[in-house]
Amino acid sequence: MTTSNNTIVALATPQGVGAIGVIRLSGPISISITSSVFSKNLERANTHTAHFGRIMEGSRILDEVLVTVFREGKSYTGEEVVEISCHGSQYILQDVIRLLLERGAVMAKPGEFTLRAFLNGKLDLSQAEAVADLISSNSEAAHKVAMHQMRGGFSSQIKKLRADLIHFASLVELELDFSEEDVEFANRDDLKNLIWQIHLVIQTLVESFKSGNVIKNGVPVVIAGKPNAGKSTLLNALLNEERALVTEIEGTTRDTIEDEVVLGGVSFRFIDTAGIRETTDLVESLGVKKTLEKMQEAAIVCYLFDGAKIELDELALIVNGLQKDVEQSGSQLMLVANKSDLITDERKQTLTELYKPLFISAKQKFQINALESKLLELVNLGKVGEQEVVVTNNRHFQALTGANEALMRAYTGLDNSLTGDLLASDIRQSLFHLGEITGEVTTDDLLDNIFSKFCIGK
Amino acid sequence: MTTSNNTIVALATPQGVGAIGVIRLSGPISISITSSVFSKNLERANTHTAHFGRIMEGSRILDEVLVTVFREGKSYTGEEVVEISCHGSQYILQDVIRLLLERGAVMAKPGEFTLRAFLNGKLDLSQAEAVADLISSNSEAAHKVAMHQMRGGFSSQIKKLRADLIHFASLVELELDFSEEDVEFANRDDLKNLIWQIHLVIQTLVESFKSGNVIKNGVPVVIAGKPNAGKSTLLNALLNEERALVTEIEGTTRDTIEDEVVLGGVSFRFIDTAGIRETTDLVESLGVKKTLEKMQEAAIVCYLFDGAKIELDELALIVNGLQKDVEQSGSQLMLVANKSDLITDERKQTLTELYKPLFISAKQKFQINALESKLLELVNLGKVGEQEVVVTNNRHFQALTGANEALMRAYTGLDNSLTGDLLASDIRQSLFHLGEITGEVTTDDLLDNIFSKFCIGK
Repeated sequence: MTTSNNTIVALATPQGVGAIGVIRLSGPISISITSSVFSKNLERANTHTAHFGRIMEGSRILDEVLVTVFREGKSYTGEEVVEISCHGSQYILQDVIRLLLERGAVMAKPGEFTLRAFLNGKLDLSQAEAVADLISSNSEAAHKVAMHQMRGGFSSQIKKLRADLIHFASLVELELDFSEEDVEFANRDDLKNLIWQIHLVIQTLVESFKSGNVIKNGVPVVIAGKPNAGKSTLLNALLNEERALVTEIEGTTRDTIEDEVVLGGVSFRFIDTAGIRETTDLVESLGVKKTLEKMQEAAIVCYLFDGAKIELDELALIVNGLQKDVEQSGSQLMLVANKSDLITDERKQTLTELYKPLFISAKQKFQINALESKLLELVNLGKVGEQEVVVTNNRHFQALTGANEALMRAYTGLDNSLTGDLLASDIRQSLFHLGEITGEVTTDDLLDNIFSKFCIGK
Repeated sequence: MTTSNNTIVALATPQGVGAIGVIRLSGPISISITSSVFSKNLERANTHTAHFGRIMEGSRILDEVLVTVFREGKSYTGEEVVEISCHGSQYILQDVIRLLLERGAVMAKPGEFTLRAFLNGKLDLSQAEAVADLISSNSEAAHKVAMHQMRGGFSSQIKKLRADLIHFASLVELELDFSEEDVEFANRDDLKNLIWQIHLVIQTLVESFKSGNVIKNGVPVVIAGKPNAGKSTLLNALLNEERALVTEIEGTTRDTIEDEVVLGGVSFRFIDTAGIRETTDLVESLGVKKTLEKMQEAAIVCYLFDGAKIELDELALIVNGLQKDVEQSGSQLMLVANKSDLITDERKQTLTELYKPLFISAKQKFQINALESKLLELVNLGKVGEQEVVVTNNRHFQALTGANEALMRAYTGLDNSLTGDLLASDIRQSLFHLGEITGEVTTDDLLDNIFSKFCIGK
């Protein structure tokens, strides 16, 4: 996939009703195409200047617009770019794009503007990917991580690791040229030491993916409890308290409803399963496969019970069952005693001794903040984005894991006096995987796969 | 309603997923507010220049953006304007707007940017209204009329009429000052002649409203016919033939479906009523109230029948019923014999003699063009937009009607030697109504009413 010589065009703003819509062109004849349908000559327009005028087809006026010109080398894509700000009518926008196509532009493919920015060296691959993440970010944490990645924070760390490795790789490769002479240009202890250092950094990045994934896609929380426990009251309390971003997400199964709530800058996906919802006997319902599946997807299982009414025997059974389940699924259990205003002090004492539940009143909105803090604590993200370099992208995670595996082979190889050519091969493989992340190593398929997920116009 | 001294902000592009979103500010401190959160100093930026940089809140980066600056007097509103082109994430856009509000901007009310353009004399009222029409235009005809109106075509005609009248009004008012002396500064014959000329122009404009309304809102067409007549095949043929803009519109009643199709640049709303759709006995169904109501809304009733199979007796009954109904409702009837490839020549001859129907085959896509031409002919819009000055706005229609009535009172008054003060009063009233159109006469309520219908950000 190489930079094409053509000029692409697309709508850059969302479809729908708005005051304005922006059409973007990129490529060698962006300005001359636009100039040919504009009421003013733009051929000599300075970069970064805006021009008010009319888009004309012969004597017919398509729209009164504002055209902004970006010269080659000074634009997002690195190419000549024109942005046309039209009135926000779908009819007009389509009509203007039609005219530009007739004058020699071609429709941009999804992500093609950002692909061109990458191919022209304006962004590396992980930065380009961060653009898509930035656009879809819907919480402070997701935004912060994407912004950091787009600004190169992630790439620079990878590039540094790779540069260090390349240095040693070249020494090892040099040895191969002199293989008859049994020389060691690369000090084996230094190399082992470096590999271990790099391994530790990669390991941290690999481990950050768990948080990163959660930041990007939201923390899955199953709220379980008997029908009268107050689950929906709790969910509403969480929503109201934070005036949070709430969306209804179509679940993966038809009977699953997810509510997304941003708490403390982190997105939580509250999963309500029909299985748990509709069965009054929770102990039994926990046995059903579907519920277990849901719990396996969950990072946190929040079990809510009526603190005033629940029988202690029943609670013991439920907690026992839940503990086994979360252990099996690797999620965390959070016990919440609701209706705390109706619980006697004596009972509170007993419950605390047995289970240390969090006492709240969803209805009275009592201790909802404590519950939020507890959720954030369990996710263990600390203060949002304190850890600035976080891997959120599955592709990066795979590449880092691949790099790490190759490094570990080299590391153990060094202990077992692995031959230079095998050592070089492992290091090369590690370099390859690290290069995949920033795009120093790419294939057309990889680029296709990454940029086809972008929206058109970006 | 006077120009406020504050600086307003709003999202100017549609909500939703897109590569970019544009935030717009207008008011005296637009540039200094933006500069205070931008990574570059914009205070001395030239008008119509674009600046790439970061929106910052302290050390936190909200987004990498492109800021375009418009100096006072050189912008859409006439005020200092800034446009901030952000990444198209709703999270980011909301966050940037929040920050701008914290720095002293206030949320723009719907249409407030255009209201300010009007109050600052950048647009007259009818031009401002055309901006909203332009944004919602979805056919060539609607677009052309709105564009013409926005560019002042409509206003200039009204302003000329008004100027002519003001001249005579002042002469008549002058007479009142000298009323004791029984002088006539305004020649009564000339005045009468002028009033008649103005009346003719207004009359044309008033009459254009019928077309104008249809251009703006689409021509309502009821397609009637028995279930096997081929209505949906016909509708599909119309859609395919033109690769037209098709939308499903939620009807006014739950059982009404409307399909919008643009034919020859004119938007047609094809109304399918459940009453007509579900009743096999059309003659009976035509009697039901709902169907009659639908037909009264329709400009054209298109009755489609199976030309090969329909009994001539039944057809006679139906056509008879339909003719009465369209007469009553003021709509036009169009008879269409479908499945023309299956109709014998003899039968065609008979049908033509009786009803002159249009013979088509919806399935074979035969004569669909002829049907389109016939529809356009019945609407009598001629070639789209040949008549450039068309009234599309109900408010303008009301004002023109009011002006015309006052003029006609003056005209008959002149015949009956109406006294100068009554004559002056009628002319003043006519001037008032004409002034309402362009906004030379306005009230806060009127402006509120007009601009509250705009979208926010325009």
